[in-house]
Amino acid sequence: MAGKVFFSATMSLDGFIAPEERVDDPDRRRWTAQWMELQQWIFPQRFFQENLKLGAGGEEGRDNDIARETFERTGASVMGKRMFDLGEQAWPEDAPFHTPVFVVTHEKRDPWERPGGTTFHFVNDGIEPALDQARQAAGDRDVRIAGGGATILEYVNAGLIDEFSIALAPVLFGSGIRLFEGVDASRVALEQVRAERSPRVTHLTYTVRER
Amino acid sequence: MAGKVFFSATMSLDGFIAPEERVDDPDRRRWTAQWMELQQWIFPQRFFQENLKLGAGGEEGRDNDIARETFERTGASVMGKRMFDLGEQAWPEDAPFHTPVFVVTHEKRDPWERPGGTTFHFVNDGIEPALDQARQAAGDRDVRIAGGGATILEYVNAGLIDEFSIALAPVLFGSGIRLFEGVDASRVALEQVRAERSPRVTHLTYTVRER
Repeated sequence: MAGKVFFSATMSLDGFIAPEERVDDPDRRRWTAQWMELQQWIFPQRFFQENLKLGAGGEEGRDNDIARETFERTGASVMGKRMFDLGEQAWPEDAPFHTPVFVVTHEKRDPWERPGGTTFHFVNDGIEPALDQARQAAGDRDVRIAGGGATILEYVNAGLIDEFSIALAPVLFGSGIRLFEGVDASRVALEQVRAERSPRVTHLTYTVRER
Repeated sequence: MAGKVFFSATMSLDGFIAPEERVDDPDRRRWTAQWMELQQWIFPQRFFQENLKLGAGGEEGRDNDIARETFERTGASVMGKRMFDLGEQAWPEDAPFHTPVFVVTHEKRDPWERPGGTTFHFVNDGIEPALDQARQAAGDRDVRIAGGGATILEYVNAGLIDEFSIALAPVLFGSGIRLFEGVDASRVALEQVRAERSPRVTHLTYTVRER
């Protein structure tokens, strides 16, 4: 049985998944504060702390369960080059995926194996071949389109996503990077599957039907 | 005990509350189809049909209960001039509010009493006086900021809203009128109170805390 293709993202109530990028902004504090507010549901979770080897503490509860389930269902991930570049500087040695990760990029590069089971594969021929390779690697588990937003949207607009998983944060951004900017609404019809208020966010799941 | 000030709107997953207005578009079918898709949870409800005297049938269930509760908690409404102008042409004689409605407008006009208990009052000195009059009229029931989007946002940004009530529809618009376009995010902090998946939408409630 083949797995599903899904993405899982944290979105502000007004539709943003990241603060506005200001390359010339020497002060990263505003950016970081806003991003932390959006993502704050995940940091205290036991699964998050364990997975990043920050310690054995942390909260348990629905938010933790959902973070863990998202990890456990994922047999392989796909990400864009931009997300990889940022992550390459930010992830610990022991990168938090612990599965194969397929990076859509023009850069030719040998697979990059990290301790703990994460191997990055660099795919040069577009989003569909990257997804095919991820499906193969995932076996009967699911493929997660990990990000960034532009990569998620490319897959959505190509009709390649089976399921949206959104942690809707009780936060307003006012500006920033919108998850659904440029979505091809004529292509995607959604069916809601779950809406669950957890202590910190609302977990929404939608399955995609073709129109 | 004074009531709360709230708004209640149906929003697409990507943040829109209405399709794009194209004044020069002779074909209103696209607009109407998109708007109907967004609002489709409300039309089949028994409360909706009763309130507009469309008949005594209709669905019962959580969507119906929530539509009825929203109506019953409302002691007075406030709306912008644009919404009033559109409604004046669209509402039946027996307008669906059945309470006083305060219209924020520059137009001077005598109160307009409709059969069934709706009286429109035209307030010329801005959003705060309109709200004050609505509070007075509502007694211990709540005041609903009925719309449109720009009026709701004026009240949000002025810090005058206690509660957001959003029916999140499993629909993507891609373009249109955004509920939170121009929100003053530095002003509003939210606490989530409810997230309930009904058969057709997800009902979200947030209370507002000042930052």
